[in-house]
Amino acid sequence: MIEIEVKVRAEHTRIRPFLEMIGAEKVKVEEQSDTYFAAPYRDFAKTDEALRIRTLDGKSILTYKGPKLDTVSKSRKEFETFVEEENSVQILHALGFSEAGAVRKVREVFRAEEITVCLDSVEGLGEFLEVEIVARDESELEASRARLFEFLGRLGLGEADSIRTSYLEMVLENQTH
Amino acid sequence: MIEIEVKVRAEHTRIRPFLEMIGAEKVKVEEQSDTYFAAPYRDFAKTDEALRIRTLDGKSILTYKGPKLDTVSKSRKEFETFVEEENSVQILHALGFSEAGAVRKVREVFRAEEITVCLDSVEGLGEFLEVEIVARDESELEASRARLFEFLGRLGLGEADSIRTSYLEMVLENQTH
Repeated sequence: MIEIEVKVRAEHTRIRPFLEMIGAEKVKVEEQSDTYFAAPYRDFAKTDEALRIRTLDGKSILTYKGPKLDTVSKSRKEFETFVEEENSVQILHALGFSEAGAVRKVREVFRAEEITVCLDSVEGLGEFLEVEIVARDESELEASRARLFEFLGRLGLGEADSIRTSYLEMVLENQTH
Repeated sequence: MIEIEVKVRAEHTRIRPFLEMIGAEKVKVEEQSDTYFAAPYRDFAKTDEALRIRTLDGKSILTYKGPKLDTVSKSRKEFETFVEEENSVQILHALGFSEAGAVRKVREVFRAEEITVCLDSVEGLGEFLEVEIVARDESELEASRARLFEFLGRLGLGEADSIRTSYLEMVLENQTH
């Protein structure tokens, strides 16, 4: 399973009328609290990987994200499993993993055609739009990417607006400046 | 939470009448399929740690076991969380962990006084008895250990019978001989 994602900065008040116009369906609103972990044996910032525990509605999910697969979108291999938060943090600590940073956001999720549209309000960072298609394998990557940029084009957004920096990187960047 | 365990070789036909005599309550029978993982950055055989996914009744549990805390019993720090098996194996592989070995056993669990008694039939290894007390912290370790050996004493078993080698180590030992 490959998650093909493009993220841009966007005022949500500008996006909502468009979503309404195309008949996008509101799926859910989630408060997501994400903790990222650093490995004791390789530097995830350099290898472009991430290991995260996301907690929402009392449930926790452990997610591994592999390196980005191309240079424009945010496509990655991704594996995730439900876990029990406190115990899985203890396991990660015992294995030598440590907290690298935290990202808190409110995410509104819409379904528009075959695209998942997220309006993200990120604590300390502002408002973003993330569009996503889930593909079965890498052969569908190009077509899915083109489809996402066609969608963004209708909002006046293009490849130049695409942000490949993760929320975590932005949060850490803010902390050091 | 500290799991204080003592394991001995024992024919189950010899143990069952004793369990019946003291009124031990049969809790459950489980077929346990355990896969152990090796870390890419430290040798769990040397550090005396273990990382395991146990699958039973369609459920999977990820367990970390820390180094033994004393030289006679098998007491360790232990953390565990429910996981989804296939995805958690994919996460471990992506992080560089690899399968180190597998242990399959049928475990009959009894409750006798405050002790958990396990009759283990391990594929390729034979029959074992494991007795266990769960203590809140290390201050209770000595008393719990003494309690377990008092219990084993009534079966004619003592510290000399205590096996500190794990089932995984025995399975791997068998494979190399």
